[in-house]
Amino acid sequence: MQTENNDKLKEECGVFGVYDFDGHDVASTIYYGLLALQHRGQESCGIAVSDTNGPKGKVLSSKDMGLVNEAFTPEHLEKLKGDIGVGHVRYSTAGGSTRENAQPLVLNYVKGTLGLAHNGNLINAPELRRELEYTGAIFQTTIDSEVIAYHIARERLNSKSVEEAVGRAMTKIKGAYSLVVMSPRKLIGARDPYGFKPLCIGKRDHTYFLSSETCALDTVGAEFVRDVLPGEIVTISPEKGIESDTSHVLKPADTARCIFEYIYFARPDSFIDGISVYDSRILAGKFLAMDSPVDADLVIGVPESGNCAAMGYSMQSGIPYGMGFVKNAYVGRTFIKPKQKSRESSVQVKLNPIREAVEGKRVIMIDDSIVRGTTSDRIVKMLREAGAKEVHMRVSSPPFLWPCYFGTDVPARDQLIAYNRSVKEISDIIGTDSLDYLKIERLEELVGGKLGICKGCFTGKYPMEPPAEDIRGDFDK
Amino acid sequence: MQTENNDKLKEECGVFGVYDFDGHDVASTIYYGLLALQHRGQESCGIAVSDTNGPKGKVLSSKDMGLVNEAFTPEHLEKLKGDIGVGHVRYSTAGGSTRENAQPLVLNYVKGTLGLAHNGNLINAPELRRELEYTGAIFQTTIDSEVIAYHIARERLNSKSVEEAVGRAMTKIKGAYSLVVMSPRKLIGARDPYGFKPLCIGKRDHTYFLSSETCALDTVGAEFVRDVLPGEIVTISPEKGIESDTSHVLKPADTARCIFEYIYFARPDSFIDGISVYDSRILAGKFLAMDSPVDADLVIGVPESGNCAAMGYSMQSGIPYGMGFVKNAYVGRTFIKPKQKSRESSVQVKLNPIREAVEGKRVIMIDDSIVRGTTSDRIVKMLREAGAKEVHMRVSSPPFLWPCYFGTDVPARDQLIAYNRSVKEISDIIGTDSLDYLKIERLEELVGGKLGICKGCFTGKYPMEPPAEDIRGDFDK
Amino acid sequence: MQTENNDKLKEECGVFGVYDFDGHDVASTIYYGLLALQHRGQESCGIAVSDTNGPKGKVLSSKDMGLVNEAFTPEHLEKLKGDIGVGHVRYSTAGGSTRENAQPLVLNYVKGTLGLAHNGNLINAPELRRELEYTGAIFQTTIDSEVIAYHIARERLNSKSVEEAVGRAMTKIKGAYSLVVMSPRKLIGARDPYGFKPLCIGKRDHTYFLSSETCALDTVGAEFVRDVLPGEIVTISPEKGIESDTSHVLKPADTARCIFEYIYFARPDSFIDGISVYDSRILAGKFLAMDSPVDADLVIGVPESGNCAAMGYSMQSGIPYGMGFVKNAYVGRTFIKPKQKSRESSVQVKLNPIREAVEGKRVIMIDDSIVRGTTSDRIVKMLREAGAKEVHMRVSSPPFLWPCYFGTDVPARDQLIAYNRSVKEISDIIGTDSLDYLKIERLEELVGGKLGICKGCFTGKYPMEPPAEDIRGDFDK
Amino acid sequence: MQTENNDKLKEECGVFGVYDFDGHDVASTIYYGLLALQHRGQESCGIAVSDTNGPKGKVLSSKDMGLVNEAFTPEHLEKLKGDIGVGHVRYSTAGGSTRENAQPLVLNYVKGTLGLAHNGNLINAPELRRELEYTGAIFQTTIDSEVIAYHIARERLNSKSVEEAVGRAMTKIKGAYSLVVMSPRKLIGARDPYGFKPLCIGKRDHTYFLSSETCALDTVGAEFVRDVLPGEIVTISPEKGIESDTSHVLKPADTARCIFEYIYFARPDSFIDGISVYDSRILAGKFLAMDSPVDADLVIGVPESGNCAAMGYSMQSGIPYGMGFVKNAYVGRTFIKPKQKSRESSVQVKLNPIREAVEGKRVIMIDDSIVRGTTSDRIVKMLREAGAKEVHMRVSSPPFLWPCYFGTDVPARDQLIAYNRSVKEISDIIGTDSLDYLKIERLEELVGGKLGICKGCFTGKYPMEPPAEDIRGDFDK
Repeated sequence: MQTENNDKLKEECGVFGVYDFDGHDVASTIYYGLLALQHRGQESCGIAVSDTNGPKGKVLSSKDMGLVNEAFTPEHLEKLKGDIGVGHVRYSTAGGSTRENAQPLVLNYVKGTLGLAHNGNLINAPELRRELEYTGAIFQTTIDSEVIAYHIARERLNSKSVEEAVGRAMTKIKGAYSLVVMSPRKLIGARDPYGFKPLCIGKRDHTYFLSSETCALDTVGAEFVRDVLPGEIVTISPEKGIESDTSHVLKPADTARCIFEYIYFARPDSFIDGISVYDSRILAGKFLAMDSPVDADLVIGVPESGNCAAMGYSMQSGIPYGMGFVKNAYVGRTFIKPKQKSRESSVQVKLNPIREAVEGKRVIMIDDSIVRGTTSDRIVKMLREAGAKEVHMRVSSPPFLWPCYFGTDVPARDQLIAYNRSVKEISDIIGTDSLDYLKIERLEELVGGKLGICKGCFTGKYPMEPPAEDIRGDFDK
Repeated sequence: MQTENNDKLKEECGVFGVYDFDGHDVASTIYYGLLALQHRGQESCGIAVSDTNGPKGKVLSSKDMGLVNEAFTPEHLEKLKGDIGVGHVRYSTAGGSTRENAQPLVLNYVKGTLGLAHNGNLINAPELRRELEYTGAIFQTTIDSEVIAYHIARERLNSKSVEEAVGRAMTKIKGAYSLVVMSPRKLIGARDPYGFKPLCIGKRDHTYFLSSETCALDTVGAEFVRDVLPGEIVTISPEKGIESDTSHVLKPADTARCIFEYIYFARPDSFIDGISVYDSRILAGKFLAMDSPVDADLVIGVPESGNCAAMGYSMQSGIPYGMGFVKNAYVGRTFIKPKQKSRESSVQVKLNPIREAVEGKRVIMIDDSIVRGTTSDRIVKMLREAGAKEVHMRVSSPPFLWPCYFGTDVPARDQLIAYNRSVKEISDIIGTDSLDYLKIERLEELVGGKLGICKGCFTGKYPMEPPAEDIRGDFDK
Repeated sequence: MQTENNDKLKEECGVFGVYDFDGHDVASTIYYGLLALQHRGQESCGIAVSDTNGPKGKVLSSKDMGLVNEAFTPEHLEKLKGDIGVGHVRYSTAGGSTRENAQPLVLNYVKGTLGLAHNGNLINAPELRRELEYTGAIFQTTIDSEVIAYHIARERLNSKSVEEAVGRAMTKIKGAYSLVVMSPRKLIGARDPYGFKPLCIGKRDHTYFLSSETCALDTVGAEFVRDVLPGEIVTISPEKGIESDTSHVLKPADTARCIFEYIYFARPDSFIDGISVYDSRILAGKFLAMDSPVDADLVIGVPESGNCAAMGYSMQSGIPYGMGFVKNAYVGRTFIKPKQKSRESSVQVKLNPIREAVEGKRVIMIDDSIVRGTTSDRIVKMLREAGAKEVHMRVSSPPFLWPCYFGTDVPARDQLIAYNRSVKEISDIIGTDSLDYLKIERLEELVGGKLGICKGCFTGKYPMEPPAEDIRGDFDK
Repeated sequence: MQTENNDKLKEECGVFGVYDFDGHDVASTIYYGLLALQHRGQESCGIAVSDTNGPKGKVLSSKDMGLVNEAFTPEHLEKLKGDIGVGHVRYSTAGGSTRENAQPLVLNYVKGTLGLAHNGNLINAPELRRELEYTGAIFQTTIDSEVIAYHIARERLNSKSVEEAVGRAMTKIKGAYSLVVMSPRKLIGARDPYGFKPLCIGKRDHTYFLSSETCALDTVGAEFVRDVLPGEIVTISPEKGIESDTSHVLKPADTARCIFEYIYFARPDSFIDGISVYDSRILAGKFLAMDSPVDADLVIGVPESGNCAAMGYSMQSGIPYGMGFVKNAYVGRTFIKPKQKSRESSVQVKLNPIREAVEGKRVIMIDDSIVRGTTSDRIVKMLREAGAKEVHMRVSSPPFLWPCYFGTDVPARDQLIAYNRSVKEISDIIGTDSLDYLKIERLEELVGGKLGICKGCFTGKYPMEPPAEDIRGDFDK
């Protein structure tokens, strides 16, 4: 689960869609779904709804910067009348943090209206934009969703249905995307053929759901139906229930799920493509205990993201699990940063070691990843100042070495602590007695050994050719 | 000048554009310009700027609901770095009051970026939308500006310059519009061939301005250069200064300015097409004194909009001008309305008669117009309760009888008090001892006898064929 | 009426009290009353109410910084349940602008609760504070109201009633005050023996009112009953209606009303001690026309405060009254000030001359007063730039030369433009062709020749000995 | 640590004081201190500072409703100039949640100014108020702090120093209090003789601190000096450093610390009177494992408050510790509650079980207490629905049976689930397979066996006679 830590990878988005065949308003259900997906994006959020029995082409939407519970008041929800809707939470790099870029995107086109929410990153968005502009398109945002929307709108002219237009658009757009589209009478979900980003289907009585994660289904009391397959398009309507178009589906071996969804992004109570996120984290901890054992008195996690793996380490090794730090639950994104030495000081405000727990002890500290390493040394120092005799760090992912083109915000290569450094050198920098990472061979095992995964950020080998120009954040800067 | 009175006509918008050839930031200048144009729209406002020396295609903008001084903080202005920019204030009917519809519109297209602010109403917007959609356009707002923007963007593919594209677009769009367009290196102004809405050019050192009214030029310390001609396109750039394209300009006799700009909308310190708004109002009062004289002790205006004409009446008749009411300057749009009998009570909160001024007197009360008449009877009653012996009302415009298709928000015909009623009947309803309107023959004289004006709302005869379907607010409902 | 002009005197406060014998809630009535008194103080405001049939000692209050329509939401008013209440609007010097100092003051004491709102300034507050502290008092604000409250609370121990305690307190406190006190079952009004500040009684069915000005009675639909006499204590209760204690009332000749209430502070639709404020201002203009005539083409007022006197001048002289400036109604206290040369620039944002009205004309410009003179020269310059041939200024009060100790915020003597300068010198500084002030002999005539007035700020002779130490704002700095 | 759970006991307050002998501003340090104490009160907060080298009697303060990071902006902190200061976070029952009641209390009295922050509840406040009123006191708040302030102010008249006055006041006030007082040149801390509430001293270079908990010292980088003794008064000044007055100190055996500080209120990284809060919770878990063992597969805590005891249970029993629930970190006090069945639904939004962790398992679930029991049954149900085979609940405190008069907000007796019910009956109501509480005999052991503790809420036997009338919240209703 994502914290406000600046040295963490950032997920791009979470999507949620609802269609209540009985005609009840869905805005507040979307609200609760987005609350459960908030860890996937804390910068902006939005809800768009439509009344399937009302005038075709009428969409009501509300979008704003900030967290879900900041952006929506009861008055907002009250006004959003409609039995079909989509919602979105978003994270973005600094330059693109404008209200205009908030999703869902709502648009009028030749066949009425569309509401569109997506999670992911296209690698050919710049080319597609240029092509569209040369045929008279105008762009009002800098998000890929607008490119996708244009393609759907244009393909719709030659298609018999919206879902057919979505399928045609999928032959043009390349990259990572999980998509929820609301047309006047249908809710459509689609996932890129590699399946980088998760998307699943839920059901509660006569209401159907599409969601980035199963935890949002639990929150709204829906039961999990199944995952959307990588490459699949599902169309939900009262007439036909769930229809599936699998013409873009690849062989399972060719799929490439983002492994960081399991390691860090997703909530531990979610299941992605049949695998429990909690389980995969416990397992990562167990692997660390097997592959990088160390004699110690206590296993602790760096809160919150390291806790599950730490429990796994404890279970496997028999070394007791304890609480090494208190994380201040009241210090969010908005507290006033100390003026000087802000990086260092802010950690002290957020985290405090529990002296009694670690004093005189040999401590194994587990975190999910090290990116720049800017906070790790501070945390290690804290433990030593609190009396820890030894500090051994174990990381539940391999060293992070390459950029991601598929929707995860990663710093430039030369800012990655593992770039051009041995594990020993990193250990010296952050001041641990020992340090080790999850072995890259263990990644497939984390997800049961049967799912295709993307390991690009560890190996530099990507499931599809990365773009020649660096398109990450191009339009945002 | 517009008040919050519900029984007043509503102007649609005000536009403002600035280009500083010396490269200084223009956002705060636009801010002050918009403050001076606030009477033209109080619902939403926005500023978009660009750095002509920066990367082509980078526009920064900030738009929000509310008044200019509510929507912008110093932090907002600080962030809006750029030496060219456009600003907008907007009024709209209820349905379309959403943040998405706030202007300026900012877009990326084949040739970079455009910022666009417009004032007016197209009468063929629905057809144009449909045509655009059939060629793959998507719409994210319900404002006409987006239709105009699409036309400019598409014509740009076959044009040598933005201004040429604006000219080509003008052959397609029909209706009332004054337009300010910011391209990466040029500021462009255009006015529809009828000249419904005002637009003028200003200059301060090496900085050029486009503004709905001259009062905004005064506010920012710029000198008035000239009005943009009806049908003219002006292009402002450091290389060529002000260039003019007059190929769309009609014969002066065929132009059709909105006469309500002089009677009510514009600020009295503005000049429109060479005519002082103050003067035209004083003149209207004088005509009323000549054409509808009455023996009385005092002339008063209904604040603020009736004051100028009341002074004119006083000057012509020799009857002293006095203050009949105090208008509460602290009661804006946002005060809490009384729960019951709200219409009636709210007037009491906003206006209070000055008993000492009117007691025992025969009073001539001047207002600029009567729309529904819902407040006039209350005001007359107030004067009588304050002791006025007689109340004679004079209105500085003719009876309002027909809809407007060109950018003024008018209630349905059957809600107009003058519809199907004689002046005597209206006088009885609002309880005056006598009532008279400005004679329709006087309208040309108000503006010096040389300018073409639109009298459609008084006569039902419009300068161009009104649309068959009622397009007013169509997309907003 | 007060504007946001920095070169204006500031009133200290407005008070309002309501008691509805039928038991209806009074909070929203107080809200509308305060809206009508807003010109008397724009810095903070508050409402306190009590239920006379509820548990003794329960007062609900809401106070905040800002204007009445900013500080109160419908939810606030909804929560303020009670049939008796007091309200307050406040202006203060910079140092004391804290939320803690907002009124009404609400307190528990030996006999239950008190709500207290006052307008004025005590000259012996520091001594009284010290005395109280030596007998164990603690102070939580820096306002005089707390000193008054303590005296009432302590005198109550030896009094048979609250009103008796108020009377006893009046023997101790010295200076200017109009007081509204709410006890659990009574509404009490009191005015200092000199009558510096106004206070009047109103009635609507079974509801009684106390108000600083009659305009607030008009606003809430109440009829004026009578003024509270200088030195009088009135007690309003369902049992006895209005009771009066006149034991502190002085001979009329010894009273000393603040003449600036008539000249500038009060709203022109108010009556104070039987005199119409509008009338007194018209009269001031007439006196100026008689005593300082000048040949000219047009009379204008500096908006808004100079308008009434300008009308009077026009009536007396026969020179037409016109509008010389447009004042931007949307520029309030909160707009973003221009960074450099802020004083000068801000006037340009707020005021713009009407060129057509003044060009080529000899103009007589009327203002109510000149304090520092910092804006007068700018306004005169504006008129000349707009083409005025001559500018003659007339001021509807005498030169301002001495401090005020009784509730008006006046700058230090050396900042007053009239201090140590002849009228000719002042005229040269502000650049007028001629300048004259109202003759000091005319002041009594303004209020009908029968009311005692304070002329201290013009003559340095005060109705009571001013304090040795300068107590103005003492606790605020 | 406190959550937003409605079925939790509420702490009343946290206090913090700083004196920087080098003269640097302390407001931002207090801000960070309060952030660390936020778990002790989330309803209102405040900071008051003074410049010890400035004019005596000048205190700047800022107080507001809401969390510390909501109530303070950088501008607020910037304005609070001063090298000595006190801060406060507050929780209160509904009726008293007004801005007026926010602390610190700031007052002027005979010897200058005082800033006062306190944590606790007096049991003789009503009598003391009445006495004070009969000698001329007025009260502007309904908090006990004002009663304490009055006593200090009055005793000061006959004392040689503020600290002497504090000592004299302590002979009058009865109940639970930890007090931080700022006089113009001294920072004073005091703790009631029973030591109900914690208070400790810290130091960083030449800066001294008083704090409710040591975790706030850690946060601001100060080292722990020592606890203030129950009954002790400490006076901190540059001249004499820390002075101590122990004349009110009782025998250790007579002291009566609130045991809930250890069990639930305080942060686990704090030490109170030499005992680690973390340790005491781990120990509670171990005692539960010893005294109420059960065969099971997994130990989990109800987040966050049950986690430490769950770890202790795991350590003692050898049963693995796991994560049973995900708590949504983004759902705070302010999210929109579901309209119907709100109690039940809200739990689902906040907590979600981790199916993979508990499915098919025999689970031991630890919580710190059960008050009404309204959420326990729902949580147990969740676990069963997630597949738990057995659910055994263990509670790390004894059954809660009696009211608290000393600063903890407890529901009425008949709302306590343990009232008149056997453990078996409670187990049946909440649906557990087994349930047990910490044995009351274990309480002394939790804190090392050497500290006097208050067990009133479990036994009904209080360290001092409770008041005849129920004074809890008396002035708030």
